[in-house]
Amino acid sequence: MASTSERALTQKRPGGRSARVRAAVLKATLEELVAVGYGLLTIEGVAERAGVHKTTIYRRWGDRETLVLEAMLERGSREVPIPDTGSLRQDLLEYGRAVLASSMEPEVEAVVRAVAAIGDSDPRVAEAARTFWRTRFALASRMIERATERGEIPPPPDAALIAEMVIAPIYFRMLVSRERMDSEFMERVADLAAEVAGAQR
Amino acid sequence: MASTSERALTQKRPGGRSARVRAAVLKATLEELVAVGYGLLTIEGVAERAGVHKTTIYRRWGDRETLVLEAMLERGSREVPIPDTGSLRQDLLEYGRAVLASSMEPEVEAVVRAVAAIGDSDPRVAEAARTFWRTRFALASRMIERATERGEIPPPPDAALIAEMVIAPIYFRMLVSRERMDSEFMERVADLAAEVAGAQR
Repeated sequence: MASTSERALTQKRPGGRSARVRAAVLKATLEELVAVGYGLLTIEGVAERAGVHKTTIYRRWGDRETLVLEAMLERGSREVPIPDTGSLRQDLLEYGRAVLASSMEPEVEAVVRAVAAIGDSDPRVAEAARTFWRTRFALASRMIERATERGEIPPPPDAALIAEMVIAPIYFRMLVSRERMDSEFMERVADLAAEVAGAQR
Repeated sequence: MASTSERALTQKRPGGRSARVRAAVLKATLEELVAVGYGLLTIEGVAERAGVHKTTIYRRWGDRETLVLEAMLERGSREVPIPDTGSLRQDLLEYGRAVLASSMEPEVEAVVRAVAAIGDSDPRVAEAARTFWRTRFALASRMIERATERGEIPPPPDAALIAEMVIAPIYFRMLVSRERMDSEFMERVADLAAEVAGAQR
């Protein structure tokens, strides 16, 4: 089930012992990220948790960044559903709620924090994150396109940016301002994004 | 010049050798964050760069989180100016540009990434970030209040959230999606935030 990019990274075909080791190591990487965070993550710690020798990990992944990158690709392959309620404001609200709920899952949160910490020290991580979010916003743009098709709003110049407006405050609060996110917050953000898109209240 | 919260953390009054050590260590912490990132930051590395013995740092700061917290408070005390151009859209654009430029300074970027990585493992860091951003958004709300006072827009229900809409995408792209931020991006974000606030194009 590995994606092309994942396969290119490990250069192993799925199935057999190799795949079992890979699955165990990536699972252990996520668990270690949740348990100790990226700052204290070590290949030794992951090896111990996965029940493999640390040289296995060093040989196959080489460094922490590659481990976190693969764990990120693996975890990120689960998609957030795109709602279709017949109202743009409601679609944006349900989408925001789903992304917020997903971002609060310990494994997702740990991966996001690790990616934020890695910065530009590993360009593959940045590239993978970019591709992931472009795909996600392209999917989310369907909410805005459907609203245009049913005549709820005029075609907006940049549908993806409207989806980004719903998502950005969630991660800003989680990673930067640490401000609380209650249900009223998500309602307000969805209201503003729907207004921007031209929807009537 | 240390703020009350900084003084409470170190329990030393400013001035003298103690203050010089503190300044050298916090400067070295920022430099180490830029050089190696939070993941590889060690108290030993900071001590070497600051030219102090590592036991000095352990005794006074105790752990990495406290060091990063103090460095953050120190660096964060420099304020981004709040523009007053006579047009809300222009104010939001210039404000966004100033925050974007600030976020790209290596020391600021390194601190933001470290804070994102620390997560909830240190509640003092979360609390300091929350206070910092509440203060910043309260200051930024003046742009929206001035626009209301000059009759450009009706009073919006939540001025701080409009400022947050300008800022959140900057940090979302920097930390999460790694999407490029060109001048058109900032223009579009300022347009959308001004529209939300009720300003006419």
